This record gives sequence, C-alpha cells and structure tokens, in this order.
Amino acid sequence: MPGIATHTATLLIDCPDRPGLIAEVTGVVGALGGNIIDADQHTDAESGRFFMRLAIERNGVDRPALESGVAMIAEQRAMRWRLDWRDSAPRIAVLVSRQGHCLADLLFRWRTGELDGEIALVIGNHDDHRALVESAEIPFHHLPVTPATKPQQEARIEELLDKHGIGCVVLARYMQILSEDFVARWSERIINIHHSFLPAFAGARPYHRAFDRGVKIIGATSHYVTGDLDEGPIIAQATTSVGHRDTIDDLIRKGRDLERIVLADAVRAHLQDRILVSGNKTVVFE
Amino acid sequence: MPGIATHTATLLIDCPDRPGLIAEVTGVVGALGGNIIDADQHTDAESGRFFMRLAIERNGVDRPALESGVAMIAEQRAMRWRLDWRDSAPRIAVLVSRQGHCLADLLFRWRTGELDGEIALVIGNHDDHRALVESAEIPFHHLPVTPATKPQQEARIEELLDKHGIGCVVLARYMQILSEDFVARWSERIINIHHSFLPAFAGARPYHRAFDRGVKIIGATSHYVTGDLDEGPIIAQATTSVGHRDTIDDLIRKGRDLERIVLADAVRAHLQDRILVSGNKTVVFE
Amino acid sequence: MPGIATHTATLLIDCPDRPGLIAEVTGVVGALGGNIIDADQHTDAESGRFFMRLAIERNGVDRPALESGVAMIAEQRAMRWRLDWRDSAPRIAVLVSRQGHCLADLLFRWRTGELDGEIALVIGNHDDHRALVESAEIPFHHLPVTPATKPQQEARIEELLDKHGIGCVVLARYMQILSEDFVARWSERIINIHHSFLPAFAGARPYHRAFDRGVKIIGATSHYVTGDLDEGPIIAQATTSVGHRDTIDDLIRKGRDLERIVLADAVRAHLQDRILVSGNKTVVFE
Amino acid sequence: MPGIATHTATLLIDCPDRPGLIAEVTGVVGALGGNIIDADQHTDAESGRFFMRLAIERNGVDRPALESGVAMIAEQRAMRWRLDWRDSAPRIAVLVSRQGHCLADLLFRWRTGELDGEIALVIGNHDDHRALVESAEIPFHHLPVTPATKPQQEARIEELLDKHGIGCVVLARYMQILSEDFVARWSERIINIHHSFLPAFAGARPYHRAFDRGVKIIGATSHYVTGDLDEGPIIAQATTSVGHRDTIDDLIRKGRDLERIVLADAVRAHLQDRILVSGNKTVVFE
Repeated sequence: MPGIATHTATLLIDCPDRPGLIAEVTGVVGALGGNIIDADQHTDAESGRFFMRLAIERNGVDRPALESGVAMIAEQRAMRWRLDWRDSAPRIAVLVSRQGHCLADLLFRWRTGELDGEIALVIGNHDDHRALVESAEIPFHHLPVTPATKPQQEARIEELLDKHGIGCVVLARYMQILSEDFVARWSERIINIHHSFLPAFAGARPYHRAFDRGVKIIGATSHYVTGDLDEGPIIAQATTSVGHRDTIDDLIRKGRDLERIVLADAVRAHLQDRILVSGNKTVVFE
Repeated sequence: MPGIATHTATLLIDCPDRPGLIAEVTGVVGALGGNIIDADQHTDAESGRFFMRLAIERNGVDRPALESGVAMIAEQRAMRWRLDWRDSAPRIAVLVSRQGHCLADLLFRWRTGELDGEIALVIGNHDDHRALVESAEIPFHHLPVTPATKPQQEARIEELLDKHGIGCVVLARYMQILSEDFVARWSERIINIHHSFLPAFAGARPYHRAFDRGVKIIGATSHYVTGDLDEGPIIAQATTSVGHRDTIDDLIRKGRDLERIVLADAVRAHLQDRILVSGNKTVVFE
Repeated sequence: MPGIATHTATLLIDCPDRPGLIAEVTGVVGALGGNIIDADQHTDAESGRFFMRLAIERNGVDRPALESGVAMIAEQRAMRWRLDWRDSAPRIAVLVSRQGHCLADLLFRWRTGELDGEIALVIGNHDDHRALVESAEIPFHHLPVTPATKPQQEARIEELLDKHGIGCVVLARYMQILSEDFVARWSERIINIHHSFLPAFAGARPYHRAFDRGVKIIGATSHYVTGDLDEGPIIAQATTSVGHRDTIDDLIRKGRDLERIVLADAVRAHLQDRILVSGNKTVVFE
Repeated sequence: MPGIATHTATLLIDCPDRPGLIAEVTGVVGALGGNIIDADQHTDAESGRFFMRLAIERNGVDRPALESGVAMIAEQRAMRWRLDWRDSAPRIAVLVSRQGHCLADLLFRWRTGELDGEIALVIGNHDDHRALVESAEIPFHHLPVTPATKPQQEARIEELLDKHGIGCVVLARYMQILSEDFVARWSERIINIHHSFLPAFAGARPYHRAFDRGVKIIGATSHYVTGDLDEGPIIAQATTSVGHRDTIDDLIRKGRDLERIVLADAVRAHLQDRILVSGNKTVVFE
C-alpha cells in the first residue's frame, strides 16, 4: 500500500463522470512538472460519479498554480476536491471510555510509525488511561459527562480539538453518543469502531447478542459517524470464527483483536487520504 | 475430522450435566467390548446441559445390549439420545429452484465421496435441473407450486421423502417458504443456505441490500429451518471481503463460492451425526 | 471488480517510470474521444517500472488511430504495450489428467458467465472426463503421453491450440511437466494450479508432505508456468485452517475447495487483462 | 474455549490406543467423586496413539488418590501423563531482542487476564524494553550475548528461570539461537514465533524473501523449539493477503499483527494445558 512519503501531496477528487477527466486532471499536474507516483480511480456505475486519488511529488511543483489549475477544472466539472500538501503530519484526537485495548493499540502503532499521522490528544470520559497516555507524552484530558452536562462537555472537547489543531476524531470504544450538531460539524472526520459486523447487532452489547443468537462468526466494523447510530459509511470490516465452546468472554477476547486491527486500518486509510465518501458508502483506495 | 468408516456407529446424547456422566456412558460401551474411536463432549455453562458424541467400532458389539444399556442411563439422567448404527448411508433429498450452483456442488461432492451420505432424490419447483440430476442417475421430480397449490405440493413432497427413505432435506437455494406443519414434522432435519451472514440481511435479496449498505464483507449461513424465517439454529457461516469496485454481480459471484462451501459443511456435519441442537444454537463437534 | 463489458477495450502498458506518463497516455485516448471507464496504475519502487491498465469504451474510437498514438509514445518511452480490442471472447484450452474438480469447476463458471472468456478445448492425457466435457459441447481430445512420445504429444497439443485459436492454456491439475520449448513459446500464457502455498511444498505430493510436517494451514497457488517447476510468477494464493483431527483425506478435500477458487481467480484475472508480469512477480489489478 | 477456572485441575494423557481407555480413566475420576467439566480426546490413526485431556473440578477430590489411580493405569498402559493441579498460575519468562511488538502484546494480554498464566520475568539481549517491562512491575534482566559469552549467558538465563519458578519460555522475536543443551533441557517448554508460514522461508529475513518471491499471502508460525532451527512441532499458524502495492515495510507491518495473534494463541494454549506433542506434530485441544 502507498504510505505517505514526506515529499508527497495528495489530491482527492469526486465529480460526475464524463470522458477525458483523467487526462484533464493529470494533464494539469504534468504541465506543472509534477510527477504522479500513484493514481487510483473509480467510477461508480450506479451514481455515475467519478472518484480519483493522485499522489504527487511535491518537489518543484508550484502549489498555488496547482490549486488554481485544479480549481478551474473543478468549476467546469462540478468537482469536489481536496489537495493535501502534507508538509506536516495530520493530527488526530482519540476519545476513550473504560476499555483501553484500542487506545493502547493505536498508541503502539503511532510509536512504531504505522499511522502516517500524529496522536496529538486523548480525551476520556473516565480517568483510567491517564498514566498510559501521559507516559507517551501526549496530553490526556478527563472530561466526565452526564446527560445534563453533555453540551458543556462537548463544547470543551471542541475547544481542545481546535486548540490542538485536530483534523480527525477517533472513537476508540468511546461509549457515549455524540450530539447531532457535533457530528455534523465533524462530518466525515469522526471514525468509530463498532464491535460487530454491521448491520448485524447495531447498538448495545453486540457480543452478548451474538452469543445468544449462536452465530459462528463475530466481527468488527469501523465507520464514519453520522447522525444515525451505527449507520454511517463503513470503512473496514473483519470477522473471525467462533464455536460452541466459546463463552461470551471468549467472544470479547477474540473481538478485541478484530477491533484493534479494523480500527487501525480505518485510521491509517483516513490519515493517508485514501478514503472518499460516496453517499453512505466509502471508496477506500489501496 | 472424523469421517465415518463403514464399521462405526455413532451415539449422540444430551442431558442435564452431572458428575460421572462420561464414565457412566463410556463404561457401558466398554463393558460390551466396544472400542470408542472418537469422543467429543461439551457442557454448556449457561443451560447446564451436557452434550456428547461417541464413535464406536460396531465390530463385536451387541446392538440390543448397547441400546438397553444406554436406555437405562437415559431414564435415570433425563437423557435424549440417538444411536445411529450406520450400516447404510443416510439418504438426503435436495430441494431446488432456478439457481443450480449449490445443487451442482452437492452432486459433485457426493460423487467424490465427500458427503458420507447419499443424494437419493432431487425436487425442483422449476424443471431447470432435470438433465443435470438425471445424468447422475438420481430421480428428479418437478413439483411447481403456487400459493393455491402449496398444501398439495408439500403433501406430494412428503410422499416422495417417505418413499425414498429420506432422513434429511437440503434446501439448496429453494426459494419457497415451507409451511409450519411441514417444518415441524421435519424439525432439525431441514438444512437451508441463506446468502448473508445472519442475522444481517435476513429475508429477500440480501446481496442487493448488502451492496446498498456498502458493507466490506459478505457472507453465507447454513442453518436448520424452523417456523421463524432465517431464525433457526446456525450450523456454519463464512465471509469474504468485498470492495468499492465490486458490483452486485460481483457480490453474487463471490457469494456463490461461500454458499457452496458453507452448505456442504453443514450437510457433511449433519450426515456424520456431528450436530446437536441446544435451544436455538448448535453444538457442532469436529 | 471490473468485468469486461462487450463494448470495452483494454490497454496494458509497462515501461520505465517517468513524470507525465499517465497524462501522456490518457491524453492520447482523450484526444480520440475515448472514454476511460477504469484506470489502474502501479509504480514498482524497486525496479522503477511503471504499469498501467486502462479500460476504454470502444464506441466511436478509431482503432488504428489509437494504436498509432500509443505506438508513438511507446517508441519514445521504451514501453511494452498490448491493446486488446475485445470484440470477441478470449479462448482458453484446459489440460487435465485424472482429477476433475478444477475442470468441472471451470466448466460451471464458464456456463454461468463468470470467466469473461470461452473454454474452447479440453485435452486430457487420460480419457476420464470426455463425457463431462462433451456434454458441455466442447471438443475433448485424449492425448496420452509417455516419456518417449512426449515430443509428438506436445506437437499435437500445439496443433490443436492453433486450430482452435487458443490464447491461454490452463493446467487444471495436469500432472505432466511441459517441455521447456513449449513453455517458452507460451510464456505468460500458461496458468497452473499447485496444491500448496508456494514456495512451501513445491513438487510432488504436497498434501502428504504438509500432513507429515504437521502444519496448521494448507494452501493453493496459481501461477504462470516457466521453465522452473513451481517457480513461476504467482497470481493468486489462499489458505485454510487444518487441525490434528484432519487426515490426509481431509487435507485433500479441503484443498480441492481452495484449488478451485484460486485457479478460477487467476483465470478470470488473465482473461480480463488484469495481470502484468514484472520480473518473477505479478501486478494483478483489481 | 475452555479457560481455566481456579478450581479446575487438568489431566493430560498419551499412550498406545486400546479399547476401554476413556472409560478406564474417567472411571478413576468418577470413583473419587470428581466431576469432569471438559473432556477432549484424539486417536492418531497413523501412530495408533491415544491423546486425552480432562478438566476436573478439584473441589472434594483427593489429589494423592487421583494420582495413584492414574499411575496404576499408566503403568499397565504405557501411558505418559501429567496432572496439573493448577492451584497457582503457571509462570512464564519472555525472551526478547530489539523488536518489542510481541512483548508489548503479551504484556497487554497478561494485564487483561487473557493468558491464564503469569509473566514472571523478561530477559533481553538488548536493554531496549526495560522501561516497558518495569512499568508493569515485572523484573527485566539485560543479558547481552556474543558467540564467546553464550555459554555463560545461557547459564545465567537458566539460573533466573529456576529462581523465578518458570515453567515455560517464550521467544518473542528473540533473535538468538539457543544451544542444543538448553533446548533439550526445556523440551516442549520453549515457544517461538517465526515470521513466515513455515516450512516456507525458514531462517533469516523471511519477509524480504517473501517479497522477492512475490507471494500473495504472508504468514506467521508459533512452534515448540527443538534442536533443528524452525523445524519444531507447529502449534498455530495464520496468514493474510498481500498485493503488488505492498512494500517490504507493509509486509513487516501486516506481519506484526499476525505474529502477535499467533504467538498469543500458542502461549494461551500451552498455559491452559491444551497441547500434547505427538512426534513432530501437536494435538491442540480447543
């Protein structure tokens, strides 16, 4: 998979399909002497929309010229686009409750350089993981929440996100439902991990319900958060086998491994600008 | 996995757990000179029920003595039990509609000896697969069905099942819902394949709904049929990855491979007496 | 995955990487009014080579003009290229010995339209599968072979390949080693299925050797055939779990399912012009 | 899977198969009023050996009586057996070099109670992971090694293993080859993780060799260490897909997830007395 070299910008575009789009866009890059080191493209036959991701060597490319070149096409073609110059690592905040396995896993991957981004902030509605986070020299904020204090707590969260220059919020088993307003403001920038293969077992206690149903596989799903609980665009999913000898504790234990991997996959893809949202689905370029 | 040698009987038991059960039952076998060549056992902690499967060399064992020995324990221990002497191959009927991939697959596995049982009869509510079935020298009956003729059609099916000595009915993408009475009479003896990872996408057109939801995995589920559609005890499940490039036709194509494998797994397990139903779940011994 | 609509041509190119290649090539297509409906591209960092696949709507595109446009770039850029107009289905021959599961599977997929190509000929060094093949109205030729008659048998095979306009040869568990000359003439056009996860257990009796080694997974590998046995560029691989209860017969049975899927994946990818060979590796576009 | 309740002893036996063994052994347990809460059994058809694992409620069972009862059968039946009373958690030592992902993962699983055992000691031939280990309040010893000092270093390791009452040594990417004498003394008690699907890519740099060969899957293998490098009995294996876009760094990254899971599976199975070695293979009861 294409990691992000520090000398690489990414251009994501999304518009109605029409002939010549690839040549048009890559032509602008080429005319400015830019080298495209990775291109991926997808046309959705149903919606007739065109999606493309270009990774471009920044070296020698004039950024304003590239932006105005793309903007000109964008206007003609009703194109949504995003040029990420990537001259600094994207910054994420992790929100967490009591369960720490996804948080610990993300911290480990961040330290080993897997994420192509920076964990800049951790917020817990419980204080459990302060020591772990602070030992990684990352600020940890304990912001407890009750139904009554939720507006204030969310306002405080957004203050912190602003202050730390956060571009993406990761819910690492954060057991609170964010308000619609919050979610709307952070649209396509909040990633959640749900501990089932959605759409099965949306909502609470999915492992218990999977156990009661007697399924032979369990799963985990990472998705962008929208106003509809567990209904947002799915980014990654995985499953593993279970059998009659597995207790609920076994399901929870096996599920932790799935959750860690599926959440990390989604966070990496987001941080590498590999995801485009298409209605309630995702295009995840490899 | 333990196939079924022709010289092997199987004993399946299911009762409330209590100390000494294994020794009691295996002691009866041993006292009659029987050699246990495979034993598997499971205690369900929730329900407190005990499940065991023994494969016993028939050679030299007095069948009536074994039956009365087990019956005596069974009475004391409130035990359900089934001794299958397996001196002839178990016989199944396959019900099919238009789609033939599961039928063709079962026929192929039967011919290569994978199933440990005999496909003795195929019934279609369409006439599409007559040539395929008859070329395997298996009787094929075309029994079309409408809401009005359903009682008569099912009566005719049961006549055929009786006549052919059928012990298990396999719904190989049979697109009709059997009546509650039929299902009740064949309880724990009808195996269905559903083309999703249940409980997600129960009911009609699961691949289309999976596509619309934008899932990143699709699956298939084999289960015993009960009066509640797609709600019976699950026997086997599997999943495979899909991505944004996959069309509905790709999902259907990939799904066919899952369906074939998951249905064949369930049929083999059933024919080898490896499944015990526990409430709405299954114990599937390996 | 991108199937091949009947109105689509594919262009595969492979050359040393340099800036502007994508724009150059897509520009030629666009200048001729061609609509690119799928583009995938890969640059191999190690070898510095550039690989691209374009699927182009044929409608209204002047074929000679496109060919000369691409040829002009090709000369400047030391580019290997192949334009497949796809106005008729690519034709394959299947070579088979005694084991028929891969052959039967390919026939089934061909009949259901999965392959995007035509099985035009089957050749067996045994006569076992004549009835199966002829019932599908495909010519079957029985060409037995001994060390002494191998040159003549291979000559006869090539006659048949020519006569039937074959573009690709599939070894569906064909238990003979083709001569170096034959393989050289059909370079990158012979696909084999090997019943292990190569490079483990290259050569004979891989399931037996896997059993003896006590592995917990078995696999299957499809690859292009080269002069070095089981050493050609790998196209697809898959594995499945095995355990201590599995006998050699279980490994063989489970392996059959892997072999069928892995071989079919490779054949589909080849017939859809999605594979480019890069040294001893493959680029398999999705 | 059967975890180990604190009130449960396990009995593992291994002997030539003969009729009546299950009844004989379970009869001894029953006669002493012991309740068998989990039984699993396997007969290896090739070697004719019988393997069984019983989990027995300790409560009310006279340990010396059980031991002498089993010993009596053992003498008659040439049986190897091991009764683990499990009144304290089994203790393991982890040996590590520079790469810390498996160590960190085991520590996390140990803290969350997944392992059914205790990490009592960590030894590194580098000093890199001292802080991590000591923050978990586990003693860390830095024992560097050169070819010249290897005998002394190993002697020092064994001193520490004795002192800490260690029953099992886990090589968590320990990049040293232990001497034959050491390995012989700790036979069936040293677990290694190798970063390939053995027997492919035994020895050094398996990810690099997998990359060069162009495989489409990579894997990891946990096994008991014997005198033959990477040739010991395999306990667990897993694989994951890779593609042409994956660099060596991607293989290493994906492989870390496999290694963590495969090593943890093996360590749990060992600590729960679920593994019996059979020649150069393992029986791993679930």
